[in-house]
Amino acid sequence: MRTRHLIDSRDYSVEEIKELCLSAEQIKDNLDDYCDACRTKIMATLFYEPSTRTQLSFQTAMLRLGGKVIGFSDASSSSVSKGESLRDTVKIVSGYSDITVIRHPVEGAAYAASLYSRTPVINAGDGGHQHPTQTLTDLFTIYLSKGTPDGLTVGLCGDLLNGRTVHSLINVLLRYSVKEIILISTAELSIPEYLKAQIVLNGIKYTETQDLEEVIPYLDVLYMTRIQKERFRSIEQYEQQSGVFVLTKKKLERAKKDLLILHPLPKVDEIDYDVDDDPRAMYFEQAENGMYMRMALVLDLLKNKKVRSHPVYEAAGYRYCPNPRCISNHEKYLPKLIGGESSGENGHCIYCDTVL
Amino acid sequence: MRTRHLIDSRDYSVEEIKELCLSAEQIKDNLDDYCDACRTKIMATLFYEPSTRTQLSFQTAMLRLGGKVIGFSDASSSSVSKGESLRDTVKIVSGYSDITVIRHPVEGAAYAASLYSRTPVINAGDGGHQHPTQTLTDLFTIYLSKGTPDGLTVGLCGDLLNGRTVHSLINVLLRYSVKEIILISTAELSIPEYLKAQIVLNGIKYTETQDLEEVIPYLDVLYMTRIQKERFRSIEQYEQQSGVFVLTKKKLERAKKDLLILHPLPKVDEIDYDVDDDPRAMYFEQAENGMYMRMALVLDLLKNKKVRSHPVYEAAGYRYCPNPRCISNHEKYLPKLIGGESSGENGHCIYCDTVL
Amino acid sequence: MRTRHLIDSRDYSVEEIKELCLSAEQIKDNLDDYCDACRTKIMATLFYEPSTRTQLSFQTAMLRLGGKVIGFSDASSSSVSKGESLRDTVKIVSGYSDITVIRHPVEGAAYAASLYSRTPVINAGDGGHQHPTQTLTDLFTIYLSKGTPDGLTVGLCGDLLNGRTVHSLINVLLRYSVKEIILISTAELSIPEYLKAQIVLNGIKYTETQDLEEVIPYLDVLYMTRIQKERFRSIEQYEQQSGVFVLTKKKLERAKKDLLILHPLPKVDEIDYDVDDDPRAMYFEQAENGMYMRMALVLDLLKNKKVRSHPVYEAAGYRYCPNPRCISNHEKYLPKLIGGESSGENGHCIYCDTVL
Repeated sequence: MRTRHLIDSRDYSVEEIKELCLSAEQIKDNLDDYCDACRTKIMATLFYEPSTRTQLSFQTAMLRLGGKVIGFSDASSSSVSKGESLRDTVKIVSGYSDITVIRHPVEGAAYAASLYSRTPVINAGDGGHQHPTQTLTDLFTIYLSKGTPDGLTVGLCGDLLNGRTVHSLINVLLRYSVKEIILISTAELSIPEYLKAQIVLNGIKYTETQDLEEVIPYLDVLYMTRIQKERFRSIEQYEQQSGVFVLTKKKLERAKKDLLILHPLPKVDEIDYDVDDDPRAMYFEQAENGMYMRMALVLDLLKNKKVRSHPVYEAAGYRYCPNPRCISNHEKYLPKLIGGESSGENGHCIYCDTVL
Repeated sequence: MRTRHLIDSRDYSVEEIKELCLSAEQIKDNLDDYCDACRTKIMATLFYEPSTRTQLSFQTAMLRLGGKVIGFSDASSSSVSKGESLRDTVKIVSGYSDITVIRHPVEGAAYAASLYSRTPVINAGDGGHQHPTQTLTDLFTIYLSKGTPDGLTVGLCGDLLNGRTVHSLINVLLRYSVKEIILISTAELSIPEYLKAQIVLNGIKYTETQDLEEVIPYLDVLYMTRIQKERFRSIEQYEQQSGVFVLTKKKLERAKKDLLILHPLPKVDEIDYDVDDDPRAMYFEQAENGMYMRMALVLDLLKNKKVRSHPVYEAAGYRYCPNPRCISNHEKYLPKLIGGESSGENGHCIYCDTVL
Repeated sequence: MRTRHLIDSRDYSVEEIKELCLSAEQIKDNLDDYCDACRTKIMATLFYEPSTRTQLSFQTAMLRLGGKVIGFSDASSSSVSKGESLRDTVKIVSGYSDITVIRHPVEGAAYAASLYSRTPVINAGDGGHQHPTQTLTDLFTIYLSKGTPDGLTVGLCGDLLNGRTVHSLINVLLRYSVKEIILISTAELSIPEYLKAQIVLNGIKYTETQDLEEVIPYLDVLYMTRIQKERFRSIEQYEQQSGVFVLTKKKLERAKKDLLILHPLPKVDEIDYDVDDDPRAMYFEQAENGMYMRMALVLDLLKNKKVRSHPVYEAAGYRYCPNPRCISNHEKYLPKLIGGESSGENGHCIYCDTVL
């Protein structure tokens, strides 16, 4: 048994996510009732890379619970710049605080932090790996609008290759009985093969397309993401295709009346400004929901419930993770750990999930 | 009817300013009584350019009211650097908070923000345009010392061309029956013509001079401002004239016993250090007063009173504001709005007040 | 009589330090009882150079007392960058707050600040000069483990030349009846001559050595410090000697069972990672103790007790302090003050303690 953390979007079961959503809804409807819930508690926000939006959301969540917030928003102005290890920073700061939120550019950093923290750790983004509170926020917004992801046709549009929010969301959706997943992107920005394999393995129907307009009438949920111009092979290709993925009022004419439009934000050009006024555009409410979900999560973790440890072993012949962006290759003192849900499964790096 | 904001120093009437001053005085005399007044409230401070002094003053005001503060102090570390529009940032952050304070390098940004904010907006400086809480602070300090600006001879000294605090103060003083305004500056740094026209239009007597020493015996209030060396045409001219505008103990010998010396701070060389100890030097108390005035303002705006909308229209032939520093030329989605107090007046850009 | 500040580690007597330790222990054992102790109070943290660790510790201390915190963490984003004097900044900010914490790269800055502050000032580090709250933290940790420094053999290891925490600690230890001080460093990084003279003057036995392993069996306290590679004359010399000063599990085999291992942190390579798990390694607890000691200190200073002024005089012929890193050579308006405990003693600069 170990302290409960939130490192991976799969750390909470479907039933537990349902409870978090109920709790978040309760908070949303009775916000002022919670203004003293964490009165004597301190949250440390260790942001090794700046992310104003995420940090503001966590800070607001804690402050609305009556708690306090300490932390830094940029490693360059912290002791890290004097060569301190992640391990030491976490040991010290968790001695000041009751809950720790960590954002780090390197994959697996949040798991590594959880090994040394005296208090619960929340992963607020570890490189391209995980961003589980965004996924919980997405699910909460679906929960509020649709009750459940079961039976829904979910479209994911934009950069499906690099977007960790999309990967996390798909991973969690696979636990529900969604009707179909429709993947809308260029061939270059389509989702990684291993994720497609996961979808197939879970028996979920999926379709790939480059044409948002064609599939929009079928969607119950449309999850838009930011496409970065520089992701295209040439400016010609960008100009040729970018319009296809921009959500406009015109395209929405053919969509369902109760379509739920989501976006993790910030957005740039991928949604026309006048779409914001469409009642189906829920991304600003989604951002607000993130605050309530984080409040629910903080309350849950501060109960300091113990959970079953993941099966983890230190394999004899294992030297290092092949992923150069894995924290175990940056902080050399970390134990080289292999995880696996069951003995039959292939091992994976416990930090960054790379299959070994 | 619309939510009340504070964008322009003229948004509050003379009567309303009097009420704010009474409230601020009440707070100053009974500070601890207000320590729970905003217990469940959150202020967002969106500082798109750093301004430690102003930000500290707003933060302290909110904290002394028992509220909480979130925000950023530099746009480069915020989502803005990912290309997010002002509109989106304001929509999202006003979903987290109960009141929004914005500082922005571009003129009209605070008005633009108020169009999209779900909560009251306070302008904490928008380029060279407005800084209304400084003006309210100035008036509160005059109110505490003199009761009212009516009947006073007010001297304004230093950079009268570029100082937005001076322009805002003059604009508001014109609503009172001041006896005389004495403008003390070089010819190069004298106030803009349109402001002189305003003074004349309001039937207020004014004098221009380059000699502080000559006019100091007549003043009831002396408002000093920072002169920047680089504002002079040559270093020779600076050295020739700068001494004329430095306030010294010697010059003060000829001043009234109850002269009120103000400065928006920070100051550099324009006031000798030993003047600080003169009881007539009230600029440090003025800075402290800024905190009480901001507390009074926050309390007032959080009542969420509705006010009459300014008359605003979207003119058919109007394409863009001629002022390149206007927010409407930076955030292209903004509606091109023209405002006018009455139909007889010439239209002006609703964001930056440029006459069209 | 004047307001009590904490500028120098000798500002509190041995008896007063004992009281602070008792208070800090009380807080550590009953943390939640103090959550409203400073409910209406505001701490200003003026960090003219970044120091995340120290700032977090002060912030947490104040927040755990129910107080609020304002401030800046870098002078470049403050009004200082507009040329404002330290004096003006302190005057203004102490008008917002109830207690002021200052960190500054220039020696004597905290004393200078205390001359103009309306509220108690805590020195959180002034260049290479003083860092008294670290010393109080060290003493509190010794107090908790050993009851008192009296009778102890204390080893100090690493960079004894440049480490202000070591100098402050020695200065205070001289007031106790320690059994012996053992100085473990290279010849190049040994403590300054004036400090050796002080040790001798106080009749304390001391030994100098380059061999940690040899002396470790005799130690009751081992105070490790960070050695910076660039402090060595050549990389060869570094590699030749650095191992000698690294604390390893192996070296600890010969140490006392109740050795107390301290380190001001952050540490880099001078302590092996596996030493962290040794129960004698108390540096992480020491960091946590810093929070309790700062809470005790804030509570004490907010009582606004008056203390006897140090004897200070403005000598006729005295023009400037010979120390170029002294604040009196940076902020020119400062009075040139000489201090001396008694008339018989040689005068020293009141800001930076340089003997004149």
